[in-house]
Amino acid sequence: MIKRGKKVWVGFDLGGTKMMATVYDDAFRAKASAKAKTPVNAGPKAVLARIRETIAEALQEAKVPPSALAGIGVGCPGVLDLDAGVILEAPNLGWKRVPLRALLVSWFRCPVALANDVDAGTYGEYRFGAGKGARTLVGVFPGTGIGGGCVYAGKLLRGKTGSAMEIGHLPIREHGRLCGCGKRGCLEALAGRLAISAEVAQAAFRGEAPYVAANAGSDLKKMKSGLLAKAVKAGDVAVERIIRDAMRLMGRAIGGVVNLLAPDVVVLGGGLVEAMPRLALEEVRIGLKETAMTTLAKQVKVVEADLGDDATTLGAAALAADAAKK
Amino acid sequence: MIKRGKKVWVGFDLGGTKMMATVYDDAFRAKASAKAKTPVNAGPKAVLARIRETIAEALQEAKVPPSALAGIGVGCPGVLDLDAGVILEAPNLGWKRVPLRALLVSWFRCPVALANDVDAGTYGEYRFGAGKGARTLVGVFPGTGIGGGCVYAGKLLRGKTGSAMEIGHLPIREHGRLCGCGKRGCLEALAGRLAISAEVAQAAFRGEAPYVAANAGSDLKKMKSGLLAKAVKAGDVAVERIIRDAMRLMGRAIGGVVNLLAPDVVVLGGGLVEAMPRLALEEVRIGLKETAMTTLAKQVKVVEADLGDDATTLGAAALAADAAKK
Repeated sequence: MIKRGKKVWVGFDLGGTKMMATVYDDAFRAKASAKAKTPVNAGPKAVLARIRETIAEALQEAKVPPSALAGIGVGCPGVLDLDAGVILEAPNLGWKRVPLRALLVSWFRCPVALANDVDAGTYGEYRFGAGKGARTLVGVFPGTGIGGGCVYAGKLLRGKTGSAMEIGHLPIREHGRLCGCGKRGCLEALAGRLAISAEVAQAAFRGEAPYVAANAGSDLKKMKSGLLAKAVKAGDVAVERIIRDAMRLMGRAIGGVVNLLAPDVVVLGGGLVEAMPRLALEEVRIGLKETAMTTLAKQVKVVEADLGDDATTLGAAALAADAAKK
Repeated sequence: MIKRGKKVWVGFDLGGTKMMATVYDDAFRAKASAKAKTPVNAGPKAVLARIRETIAEALQEAKVPPSALAGIGVGCPGVLDLDAGVILEAPNLGWKRVPLRALLVSWFRCPVALANDVDAGTYGEYRFGAGKGARTLVGVFPGTGIGGGCVYAGKLLRGKTGSAMEIGHLPIREHGRLCGCGKRGCLEALAGRLAISAEVAQAAFRGEAPYVAANAGSDLKKMKSGLLAKAVKAGDVAVERIIRDAMRLMGRAIGGVVNLLAPDVVVLGGGLVEAMPRLALEEVRIGLKETAMTTLAKQVKVVEADLGDDATTLGAAALAADAAKK
């Protein structure tokens, strides 16, 4: 139960498959959480209704009176207009031009801050996790794509109206593979989980990855991080090779980011890293040394993210609190 | 003549071949300048003496009483420790661990701010030139190498003790050409002026660049930006081709920077761009579109630098004034 007069914050993580609301007290200790599946196929209205319910459920469980709710922070996928509080386009959700901030304000009568989901996660790691106290923190979260964020001198680096740090779309190979963004040779097209899965599926098809063939056939949808990690453990050498190559390439790209931003900490997170942290960090460090300038490579630590799924809700809640201070 | 009670600032540009001091009034209007060659071969002490003389000469010409000198800003090459005010290593000058700030303070009895030379130039363009009013400005200055800078929300993006934005060392090609920094496939090794000159020299050697062969033989030292521009004008098609390819590659790398920093303005400057602005901008814009995400490419303007050689002294003087305000 939250005491009278104390402020609470809600951090919300809006994903394409699931969503989570966590209620935090004013020291950012979690008081209650609620999770739900994202009913993407039922359309935008159903998703919005589910968001409202999930937040309400978390608040109820934490026994927060409406007057104690100081603000809501939301980590969102897609292209945002942060100034307007609108999700311009989120392919994962099938959304176009959804004024999420205004809707949440009308439902919960409190200030609402939107952020890109990877930015929120990066900020969470900066404030409460593996990047605490960094001067310049770069967060890299390989998932289906490869997301990135940067906290510089205490603030998230942002574009004019939306996110910046599209690390997944750094050009890595001239005339390289086609990327979902329409360009060629992006990091994500070469080393994202979808790209890895496609290579693994080929290996399975050719009989070079027996564990994968037996447990997932050649269906990309089944080749999630957990399965890939199990395949590596089970001795699918080709799978290990594919993942190591991808992580090393990611390290090379991160080395380029190091040359631009001179971070003191790089935090690696996301499903693939959580499933195989040692392997991922090992290869990223090797790749980074191949491309980062010697003096800058020496100044940077590459570490694993600390907060897992809580990074986004924590970061979003903290961003809401920051916005309220202004 | 500077009136009593008015403040003046000195901006100093310390280069490997020449140096320049300019005196600015408190509205950053140039009052007097002094130039000198940098006597690198005579050793560090001779260079330091020449710096002192050149600044003193500019002050004398502007008739500035010592009491009116509010501060000196210096754009320096090499690796700096900005917090300590020390040039750690400047290969162009043959310097190691020179406490330039302390020396200037002892000579001129005023606050002194050091900055990386490209950072100073970028800041000059941001405050007074082609990048005025930008939210996020990226400056790219191809010279012998390829320097970069970024002003974000009014401030230069910096590393912990030195410069950041080493655009010349973005990894462009796996297994690519060896770079001066010791890594392979850096942008600078593929598209810097030295790389261009080496390709042009080969073309001249093979008889494919008659203007260059007649006017510079195959000596890289003679293949400066002005000569290359003349060769293009004179019809050395191979030279034009080499430069266009290099500029397009630079544009591809800048597209990657756009995906990270989402700038609204990219300023291109430096000798090569000044000598062939149309050609350079054309190819950079094409290259940028090949790699920058569509929404981010639409938000960015690529423009030519406005201030030429004055960008560095102006930016350095403005940085000195900023530092004095703190």
